[in-house]
Amino acid sequence: MELPTPAFTVDIDVVKRNTQKMIERFQVLGVRLRPHMKTHKTLEGGNLMTGGTRRGIVVSTLAEARLFADGGFDDILYAYPLPFDKVEECAALTERLEAFQVLVDSQEALGQLMKRRLSRGKRWQVELAGIYAHCGNTYGCSGIAEIQAVAQATTTATLEFMSELQKAGVACPASSIGSTPSCSHPVADMGKLTEVHPGNYIFYDVQQMRIGSCEMEDIAVRVLTRVIGHYPHRNQLLVDCGWTGLSLHSLGQLPTGYALVEGHPDLKLVGMTQEHGRIEPIAGNLDFSKFPLGSLLAVVPYHACATAAMHPAYYVHAQGKVVALWKPVRGW
Amino acid sequence: MELPTPAFTVDIDVVKRNTQKMIERFQVLGVRLRPHMKTHKTLEGGNLMTGGTRRGIVVSTLAEARLFADGGFDDILYAYPLPFDKVEECAALTERLEAFQVLVDSQEALGQLMKRRLSRGKRWQVELAGIYAHCGNTYGCSGIAEIQAVAQATTTATLEFMSELQKAGVACPASSIGSTPSCSHPVADMGKLTEVHPGNYIFYDVQQMRIGSCEMEDIAVRVLTRVIGHYPHRNQLLVDCGWTGLSLHSLGQLPTGYALVEGHPDLKLVGMTQEHGRIEPIAGNLDFSKFPLGSLLAVVPYHACATAAMHPAYYVHAQGKVVALWKPVRGW
Repeated sequence: MELPTPAFTVDIDVVKRNTQKMIERFQVLGVRLRPHMKTHKTLEGGNLMTGGTRRGIVVSTLAEARLFADGGFDDILYAYPLPFDKVEECAALTERLEAFQVLVDSQEALGQLMKRRLSRGKRWQVELAGIYAHCGNTYGCSGIAEIQAVAQATTTATLEFMSELQKAGVACPASSIGSTPSCSHPVADMGKLTEVHPGNYIFYDVQQMRIGSCEMEDIAVRVLTRVIGHYPHRNQLLVDCGWTGLSLHSLGQLPTGYALVEGHPDLKLVGMTQEHGRIEPIAGNLDFSKFPLGSLLAVVPYHACATAAMHPAYYVHAQGKVVALWKPVRGW
Repeated sequence: MELPTPAFTVDIDVVKRNTQKMIERFQVLGVRLRPHMKTHKTLEGGNLMTGGTRRGIVVSTLAEARLFADGGFDDILYAYPLPFDKVEECAALTERLEAFQVLVDSQEALGQLMKRRLSRGKRWQVELAGIYAHCGNTYGCSGIAEIQAVAQATTTATLEFMSELQKAGVACPASSIGSTPSCSHPVADMGKLTEVHPGNYIFYDVQQMRIGSCEMEDIAVRVLTRVIGHYPHRNQLLVDCGWTGLSLHSLGQLPTGYALVEGHPDLKLVGMTQEHGRIEPIAGNLDFSKFPLGSLLAVVPYHACATAAMHPAYYVHAQGKVVALWKPVRGW
């Protein structure tokens, strides 16, 4: 592959395996999978995550909602405390789709919705339709046992809350929890929920691997970068991937710096400017002859959502050939 | 202004003042100003930085080069060690423009250029046309005296190198140094250079203010964000600006966290997810009645280049009214 660099690449076979495994995992548990679109923000990714049904997704922005609604998706949950400037657009989406759900967590937000009556016999989907929780604390885990302990605690808390609601005579049909770590290693009790909503697993990344959600072979994405400078007096390589190509999301705290260089666990991405990356050995002297000017390195992102967000196009490949270009939506 | 949030806003009057001041500063010194486009990446910004001449700019990517060439700009310097995958595109730009300059810092890069002969009687502009240096170490400065010490050292080193070249009989007509800190507070010896190439000063930011390049009133950009949640049990506000709207560029290390909240020096942006920001007081209890749900806060970015890079459009305003929408170029 001789792509212009820096290039965000997606291994479609890995994506298909990741998305198919998640679908099967929750089919077995009898729980609906409502995948989150925020990591990739593409119609193609959404199609794979829903197994082609294009029904039942979560979005983080109205730009995503518009993209997916225009692309034939329906049953869209806008998982965000209703922003007051976006009521009109939420109304338009509710009127247009079979189901568009918003979240409210205050009396004031409910007031905003009540001021905007819907046409076409539609009602705002904000009755107490369900409990939506994100076990974000799985991101502090290390290993499957810790992930499953958090998954269990979140599931138990959610189910107990549902049970209290029922005792109080409050109808609340749905319970949904999410996060890629917990859904990659679900506990049996998650079978008692109605829904899960993970997102990152379409790509996975170094952060998920360190948490224990996945293995290296499950990470579908790379940033391809070229060696553009040799600086022996600094014991450093210069590459054409700066923070516009990777983001600063590990904050440089990995043993290998801001990311992993695939196949070179002895290298460290020590810093980036807007368009340059500086790579040096973790220890010892760099053998520059192994990294000729113009040669390619594959950088494995720490946080795939953040790295994907820096790229206007994804190069999708299968068995070493580019097979598609995916264009994500940006903005709000 | 009732903009949809998060919104990247640009005060056009401040931009005009910043760009005009830089033009005048170097007219007085008799030094050519070759402004860098990487901070804003818009035709409108380039027009103001060149005082309407659209001649003599620096770019950091070929996507910028294409945008500005298509927009009628010429004399473009691609300030980047020539990437071997981009030789053909550099050739096309050189053939098309009056002047398109590339940088080479290795024998191999020169070899790549020599393999690609130019048509239309054009020559690669890579004779030793000049010395190009970036006094990036000004970014470690605090205060004008420190900035000027670095500016002096860089200028002296550059001029001494030029003088050695002359002694050795090597023709090298141009000397160019840059960085917004040094060009905001130039030393007299910079008048002996042929060129300077700062970029960030079009917007300035909190980082530049802390270095001493500018004052708060010179910072032209904000991220407008809305209060979307009150969480008294955590003593926190939730706002609709996450890292997709701001970037993580201060790494959270400011006394006020990831940025400054304008008019509220007592607030700290303590963390962000993809689409949410969490704000709490630096000390004491938050008075939530001052920040009603739906109200706006203006966040002053730590690094304007990085924050601008997250936005598909800039809302340009004058005296409280939106007067234009600028669309930056992205990618490579």
